[in-house]
Amino acid sequence: MGEFDLIARYFTRPAHRSPLGVGDDCALLQPAPGMQLAVSTDLLVEGRHFLSTVDPVALGHKSLAVNLSDLAACGARPLAFTLSLALPSIDERWLAGFSQGLFALAEAHACELVGGDTTRGPLTIGITVFGEVPAGQALLRSGAGSGDELWVSGTLGDARLALEAFRGTVSLPQAVFEAARARMDTPQPRVALGTALRGIATAAIDLSDGLLGDLGHVLQRSGVGATVEASCAPRLLAAVRSGLVLPPERIEELVFAGGDDYELAFTAPAQQRDAVLAAGRATDTPLTRIGRIEAQPGLRLVDDEGRPLARSFAGFDHFCA
Amino acid sequence: MGEFDLIARYFTRPAHRSPLGVGDDCALLQPAPGMQLAVSTDLLVEGRHFLSTVDPVALGHKSLAVNLSDLAACGARPLAFTLSLALPSIDERWLAGFSQGLFALAEAHACELVGGDTTRGPLTIGITVFGEVPAGQALLRSGAGSGDELWVSGTLGDARLALEAFRGTVSLPQAVFEAARARMDTPQPRVALGTALRGIATAAIDLSDGLLGDLGHVLQRSGVGATVEASCAPRLLAAVRSGLVLPPERIEELVFAGGDDYELAFTAPAQQRDAVLAAGRATDTPLTRIGRIEAQPGLRLVDDEGRPLARSFAGFDHFCA
Repeated sequence: MGEFDLIARYFTRPAHRSPLGVGDDCALLQPAPGMQLAVSTDLLVEGRHFLSTVDPVALGHKSLAVNLSDLAACGARPLAFTLSLALPSIDERWLAGFSQGLFALAEAHACELVGGDTTRGPLTIGITVFGEVPAGQALLRSGAGSGDELWVSGTLGDARLALEAFRGTVSLPQAVFEAARARMDTPQPRVALGTALRGIATAAIDLSDGLLGDLGHVLQRSGVGATVEASCAPRLLAAVRSGLVLPPERIEELVFAGGDDYELAFTAPAQQRDAVLAAGRATDTPLTRIGRIEAQPGLRLVDDEGRPLARSFAGFDHFCA
Repeated sequence: MGEFDLIARYFTRPAHRSPLGVGDDCALLQPAPGMQLAVSTDLLVEGRHFLSTVDPVALGHKSLAVNLSDLAACGARPLAFTLSLALPSIDERWLAGFSQGLFALAEAHACELVGGDTTRGPLTIGITVFGEVPAGQALLRSGAGSGDELWVSGTLGDARLALEAFRGTVSLPQAVFEAARARMDTPQPRVALGTALRGIATAAIDLSDGLLGDLGHVLQRSGVGATVEASCAPRLLAAVRSGLVLPPERIEELVFAGGDDYELAFTAPAQQRDAVLAAGRATDTPLTRIGRIEAQPGLRLVDDEGRPLARSFAGFDHFCA
């Protein structure tokens, strides 16, 4: 099968919302008047971001999900994406599964495949995603202000818990393992929440590398610091809420530094608390208030009495991990 | 060095034309009113698209050049690009060279780096490029009409000649080899010509896989056929114009099926011939008329008397080559 047959068979769908889709030198996109185009790109490499044994349907889902999560963090509505694939060989079973998982999520978010590139090479998946957001309304990392409250969506640490179970550092009951594995394999990007937070949140980021590490980027770009309440950790790990017992330090490490969560962390003024909670209800997204932005630089983890806790979690960095 | 240090040191430049550049979850792009955004993406894999021995400065240039060539083929003006890099290790000499070649070409075309992703993995370069074109004026593959004349820019086949010299299938004088190698390593995308052909050309494509193969895509999408004059081949190979002697069949193969040219092939009505030539002069681009679009499907190579020639060139397909 040649490159062009491959594109035609697995990756050509009719373009509804872009003036020109797959098959020309370029795709054409036309943001609506007054809209800015939000763009994000991710490269997933076998052995680094996924194992060769991963289910191709789940991989197709996750490859797009991690990019849609970046749009969510900007408050952008998905429009379109491009896909670049390096494949070691043409495995039709793999391609069928991958494209099925990819397009199921794409269609759920009305996000069209508009272009791409395929070549032979070590298995690598490159996606660039496009969304639109009203000019000036994008949620940035740089907008957090002293006194803002700090929120996270959903639960944190369960994807990392599944990874640790695969690594053998923890043993999990079957049901807990399956739930954690679903969080790792098929994260659900918080797109609806992101757009609902426009005009409410002052800063936002999606959590891919671990809460504290990602939060650090917000603090750095906003020129502020933050206090995070350690006691929120057990409530944020779904496995613990389902009855799993783990040492407190382990729970904190999973929640605060686990990574691969694809939830949103965001800041909002205290007087917007009702609006934040309404956005969570409107989009069916659980939200937890975990701390506060402060003028003093740095990130402080505190106990119930506000006393600093000495903790050291490895930040998650693809070149350091 | 961590991922973030790497981005900061080699790949962060101030954003002038996009509202938000490198360092947030998304970049933001704002096409001017009435403009469409043209998007193209390419994935370059070591061992497939370049050798490990390639000069990193040239590789940085070529990685962006092949994408700008797609914008040129649409008649789009470059605006911005994203860069995804998988690197087997952090080699600062390589990164310094690669970023130097990349940014030199980017700056020559006022094309800003607005986002990206870096990870550890087999050396892979993913670029997605954005340009703008007035709504409805993009040059498409689908617009060629019977009676149109068929044109190509610049010279063809010299990049393939350099590759053949590396493979040892041909021996070249040093000066010819150096010139051919420059065509292979540092192609110059025909951006100025592409925008000058708006409203003149009826269809266009950039030549990456060989003239006849790429032309086939135009014919297929336009629902037409074409006749190409074989006698134009010697004039199109720069090495022959410089005095290199090669068998006629070899010249034809290099010119018609060599690949890696990054020139434009385009069609225009005969009554636009003066406008085509003026666009070539205005952008300092040599243009050659090589044939004609016809209603009869298929691609015919003919001799000086218009008699069909029996020739078989391998199409260039990244999964078949």
